[in-house]
Amino acid sequence: MSVDVAIILVSPQLGENIGAASRIMANFNFADLRIVNPRDGWPNSKAEIMSACGIKVLENAKIYDRLHDAVADLEEVYACTARARKMYKEYVGLKDHISDIKDNGISANKIGVMFGSERCGLLNEEIIYAKKIININTDDKFPVLNLAQAVAIICYEYYHCLRSPIDKVSKYKKRDAKMSEMIFFLETLKDNLDETGFFKDEDRKVKMYENISNIFVRNDLSGQEIRTLVGAFDALYNFNKK
Amino acid sequence: MSVDVAIILVSPQLGENIGAASRIMANFNFADLRIVNPRDGWPNSKAEIMSACGIKVLENAKIYDRLHDAVADLEEVYACTARARKMYKEYVGLKDHISDIKDNGISANKIGVMFGSERCGLLNEEIIYAKKIININTDDKFPVLNLAQAVAIICYEYYHCLRSPIDKVSKYKKRDAKMSEMIFFLETLKDNLDETGFFKDEDRKVKMYENISNIFVRNDLSGQEIRTLVGAFDALYNFNKK
Repeated sequence: MSVDVAIILVSPQLGENIGAASRIMANFNFADLRIVNPRDGWPNSKAEIMSACGIKVLENAKIYDRLHDAVADLEEVYACTARARKMYKEYVGLKDHISDIKDNGISANKIGVMFGSERCGLLNEEIIYAKKIININTDDKFPVLNLAQAVAIICYEYYHCLRSPIDKVSKYKKRDAKMSEMIFFLETLKDNLDETGFFKDEDRKVKMYENISNIFVRNDLSGQEIRTLVGAFDALYNFNKK
Repeated sequence: MSVDVAIILVSPQLGENIGAASRIMANFNFADLRIVNPRDGWPNSKAEIMSACGIKVLENAKIYDRLHDAVADLEEVYACTARARKMYKEYVGLKDHISDIKDNGISANKIGVMFGSERCGLLNEEIIYAKKIININTDDKFPVLNLAQAVAIICYEYYHCLRSPIDKVSKYKKRDAKMSEMIFFLETLKDNLDETGFFKDEDRKVKMYENISNIFVRNDLSGQEIRTLVGAFDALYNFNKK
């Protein structure tokens, strides 16, 4: 799916939030930042400081006086807001919205998500441009997210839904230990423990050796790790020995 | 699933980020904020300003000098970091981690996620306490997230994963070991090995202790198993001693 996503900040107040929004966009490979009527004018030095790796996104941000110019070229616009609205418009949780895109695709090449000001969110007159209202479901008591964190969560979900190449699974490297090494390690340990009197009696020895073996065998130990353990147990075993 | 989640900020620098972390925790109904060694001391007025609806979370935050005290009562700890590590430890994308929890449940009642400082993230010596490293997959060019935005994404995913109804019963038995037991075991082992001369020199000691810790921490050890290991190592250490 190749879909361009624009992030649209409507009347944002704090430069820090604008900067942090540009940074998270860079993290998730979104480049199209649009800012409508920023309270403190433009450019904004606090936004620059917070942008970090997002400085290019910030420098390329487009500034608008009116929201309708900012959304003009898009095919679909969503409104991200915490407050329920008395509006006859689909109101969908973000997780459901993402599932829907995964199941059914998205019927646009160029979409945008609007976010309102820190003080009061999106106004109804702004939401009219939205196809749907997207809600980041939260605890009922505290539904209002910080602007930059809301942008972060939206970018994160869109990235994984629209952009991410097949999950970059980076499981740890395969173990290179052979069972023979594991067995040598366990049997040496058993013999040494036996010599110290650790097992107390033969009955307990069987059970305790089982328990100890389980601890190590179910773990994916590399050859190097087994050698480290052999060395560590040896050092203890030989300590104080003449 | 009823799982308590602690958010652990290790050596955070900016009050603004600490405040924004507390706010997003309140949004997603998490209450357990732990802060290790905040650069600018405590309390922090900038954190208070940014906390908004998270002020209660912030006021109840626990402050620690040492990370190991901050994780002592937890059963499982994860490290959230962007940088790949030369460590033999599972490194998993957040989406995969969440899928795994959804499919298999989680084998702990009380977990924590650690985040490092803004300047350099988590150190290897901090990551040793983690069962897995969680990576918020991003665009390859810009992998480093703002701290408060990283916390936001983790809280968002955990909220939806741990609070939405999940039919499957965890396939893992609940582990009853606390991190404090694990840490006691590891530190005793380190001291005893040190005494035997196992580490040879200080440089190697750091790396080898890291390796040994990783072997045990990533494993799901029960309290009983840890006690068995303590006993086994003790028996070897004291062998031949007068």
